[in-house]
Amino acid sequence: MLEALKQEVWEANLSLVEMKLVLFTWGNVSGRDRNSGLVVIKPSGVSYEALRPEDMVVVNLDGAVVEGLLHPSTDTETHLALYRAYDGLGGVTHTHSTHATAWAQTGLPLPALGTTHADTFYGEIPVTRAMTPAEIAGEYEKNTGHVIVEALGSRDPLHMPAALVLSHGPFTWGKDAKASAHNAAILEEVARMAILVRTVRPDVVPMQKELRDKHFLRKHGPGAYYGQG
Amino acid sequence: MLEALKQEVWEANLSLVEMKLVLFTWGNVSGRDRNSGLVVIKPSGVSYEALRPEDMVVVNLDGAVVEGLLHPSTDTETHLALYRAYDGLGGVTHTHSTHATAWAQTGLPLPALGTTHADTFYGEIPVTRAMTPAEIAGEYEKNTGHVIVEALGSRDPLHMPAALVLSHGPFTWGKDAKASAHNAAILEEVARMAILVRTVRPDVVPMQKELRDKHFLRKHGPGAYYGQG
Amino acid sequence: MLEALKQEVWEANLSLVEMKLVLFTWGNVSGRDRNSGLVVIKPSGVSYEALRPEDMVVVNLDGAVVEGLLHPSTDTETHLALYRAYDGLGGVTHTHSTHATAWAQTGLPLPALGTTHADTFYGEIPVTRAMTPAEIAGEYEKNTGHVIVEALGSRDPLHMPAALVLSHGPFTWGKDAKASAHNAAILEEVARMAILVRTVRPDVVPMQKELRDKHFLRKHGPGAYYGQG
Amino acid sequence: MLEALKQEVWEANLSLVEMKLVLFTWGNVSGRDRNSGLVVIKPSGVSYEALRPEDMVVVNLDGAVVEGLLHPSTDTETHLALYRAYDGLGGVTHTHSTHATAWAQTGLPLPALGTTHADTFYGEIPVTRAMTPAEIAGEYEKNTGHVIVEALGSRDPLHMPAALVLSHGPFTWGKDAKASAHNAAILEEVARMAILVRTVRPDVVPMQKELRDKHFLRKHGPGAYYGQG
Repeated sequence: MLEALKQEVWEANLSLVEMKLVLFTWGNVSGRDRNSGLVVIKPSGVSYEALRPEDMVVVNLDGAVVEGLLHPSTDTETHLALYRAYDGLGGVTHTHSTHATAWAQTGLPLPALGTTHADTFYGEIPVTRAMTPAEIAGEYEKNTGHVIVEALGSRDPLHMPAALVLSHGPFTWGKDAKASAHNAAILEEVARMAILVRTVRPDVVPMQKELRDKHFLRKHGPGAYYGQG
Repeated sequence: MLEALKQEVWEANLSLVEMKLVLFTWGNVSGRDRNSGLVVIKPSGVSYEALRPEDMVVVNLDGAVVEGLLHPSTDTETHLALYRAYDGLGGVTHTHSTHATAWAQTGLPLPALGTTHADTFYGEIPVTRAMTPAEIAGEYEKNTGHVIVEALGSRDPLHMPAALVLSHGPFTWGKDAKASAHNAAILEEVARMAILVRTVRPDVVPMQKELRDKHFLRKHGPGAYYGQG
Repeated sequence: MLEALKQEVWEANLSLVEMKLVLFTWGNVSGRDRNSGLVVIKPSGVSYEALRPEDMVVVNLDGAVVEGLLHPSTDTETHLALYRAYDGLGGVTHTHSTHATAWAQTGLPLPALGTTHADTFYGEIPVTRAMTPAEIAGEYEKNTGHVIVEALGSRDPLHMPAALVLSHGPFTWGKDAKASAHNAAILEEVARMAILVRTVRPDVVPMQKELRDKHFLRKHGPGAYYGQG
Repeated sequence: MLEALKQEVWEANLSLVEMKLVLFTWGNVSGRDRNSGLVVIKPSGVSYEALRPEDMVVVNLDGAVVEGLLHPSTDTETHLALYRAYDGLGGVTHTHSTHATAWAQTGLPLPALGTTHADTFYGEIPVTRAMTPAEIAGEYEKNTGHVIVEALGSRDPLHMPAALVLSHGPFTWGKDAKASAHNAAILEEVARMAILVRTVRPDVVPMQKELRDKHFLRKHGPGAYYGQG
């Protein structure tokens, strides 16, 4: 079932390696089927070289395995919490990419310092609050999804397709699996730039609001004019 | 028309990928034909792998498409503003290369700290002023060109073949498309070095004036003696 | 003798190059045979390209060469001190990987700042004390092993499979040669992240204890549920 | 003439590219023939891809071209000043490698912070003084060699096979061309580590003297025991 989506999710998982966003098995991408509502996700702890499209696991929104011989990613419940919260999401990606993860370890939100950021992320990228001992001891992965949703607050998730989980790392999303992986690469790059900026100017302030809006809106929304239209 | 220039501009665009100056489609190179005054530029938002020489778009100095099926780069009006201001330019490059873009986000000009810088850039590389809300809301890309020209001031553009657009990133230029891309690579490297220097010595001062002049002038101008002459 | 182990140790040594953990000959991996107690280790100062499985040297726990035409790694006595101290070790790796070595030069232990760290290392990674002039002038390499054991103290070496030797670099270990090299790559990555975090937040504090425990224990120990089980 | 040496110098020049020490044509290696005293060096401003062994230029110690159709490297007079000053040198390398060049721009000597440094460089790597306007306006490249010799002072050049030229970059040397290029790679790596250390500990102090001596002397000098002996 869902062979085309498995292929797509498999390709998006492999693209994490090509884009140098993962070491060993430290990343996972999922995609949601719009008709059935089922989610296809990478199995847990399998090396990228060994991974085949048919290894992808199909789960429903409650986390039950619908098809697949392998255990789904340990982070599956985090992905599902995001799909349940936001109808618009077709793909979710989690990595431990170096710079985005380092920024998540700082405990700070990632400010919009330039147009590279504003072309994809509309404003400061939120960082989650510390989870309570009860949240960690309980359904930890599901609760990770909940603190992401809490951190996003009233933002449109497609205008802010990323969050940093405190002391952990980035989650990104998009209209499909490929877009979510693409956003993971952009987040890594803007985190890298932000770290470099902070080494030169520890007191740097966010970019001009008008410039931020201009760049986001020329690529997204009704008046967009970037690309081949 | 202008098939040789299309090939040259196409190669210069691909060289950005080889020199690791672009992620996804984040860069563009143009070249100007000396006879006709027409400009050949990369189309907007097309991936580098899919790009063919015949996809290059021909525009005139007013921005009208003279030949080509695709939309020209969103940054076309910035390129054209530079060609209009400076007769000597045969090529313009824009990238979001990591270190030059990070430096542009600091809001500081890039000081000449060593001979690697002075071999190509004669003095501090200027950063543009913040654009006004009206400049951003109006002809934004054209106005980006205008603030670059304003930042260059009385400098000879071939002695200072680069500027950093505030909160955005680098533009470079040269006698042709290839030279402008070459200068983009050098700017990325000197920005990278400058960030490293500042991590060790936040209080570093520019290099000696005599050394700066010696290095620029042994490679450029009437007394140059570097290379095979 | 021990041909399978030689092959395994040879592969683990070459994996250091693939994982970009070594420059020139600056690294070595050994493995211990559980039956005989003998240790197989890389020869000293041989380039990785020239290295063949049959070049691996077999030594006993006292450091006597049992088989092999080449001198064993200069660091052999450090490896042996670790094997003698800890029955559970099947492999040891030493590198001068850039970021872990830089951290060892800071003289600080490497704090647990995030889950990337806690997935493998249970708490702060210890740094050894300065060796005395007598320890350096005497059996230096053996004494290097002793200060590592001293720095680990009462920790379970498989819960803390790494130490940083002051002003020198990382040693890692594991259940076999491959695991020890794998841990060297993880240590390099978490050291790299920690340096980046410190550039943004020099005052960063270690991660939450509950989160640290959760991540270590979901991958290690009796209740582990990561991977294919 | 000197075909074997030309091949060796050509290979050493290409190794700079493989070791990622040069961008474009920014580096040069020379080698000295022990019998004739002649020096073989890379031509000026020729791309590494186009370079052939027969393009190498033969000069005498006074800088006269003895054989070769191309101009020798602009830095030839610096190389020659080093050969004239030190009989023991068989090869000299100059690069603009990123981290060593950045450190040269800080104006500081490079302290010995760890064994990676001490395995090759016996103590702090000197940085040259600022050249006088007259030295720059006069025989600049030759005077660059003179300030290197001045900075080395009474050191044995094979115990300190490197110097940083202020605001410029590294020069390294060794018993032959290959060794000088090898030392350029090690210098780049120790400069990179030192910059990382300084970001975490701006107040770091040099390593213990006893450890420094131990590491240098176990690889160099009469009691050396590293490698296959």
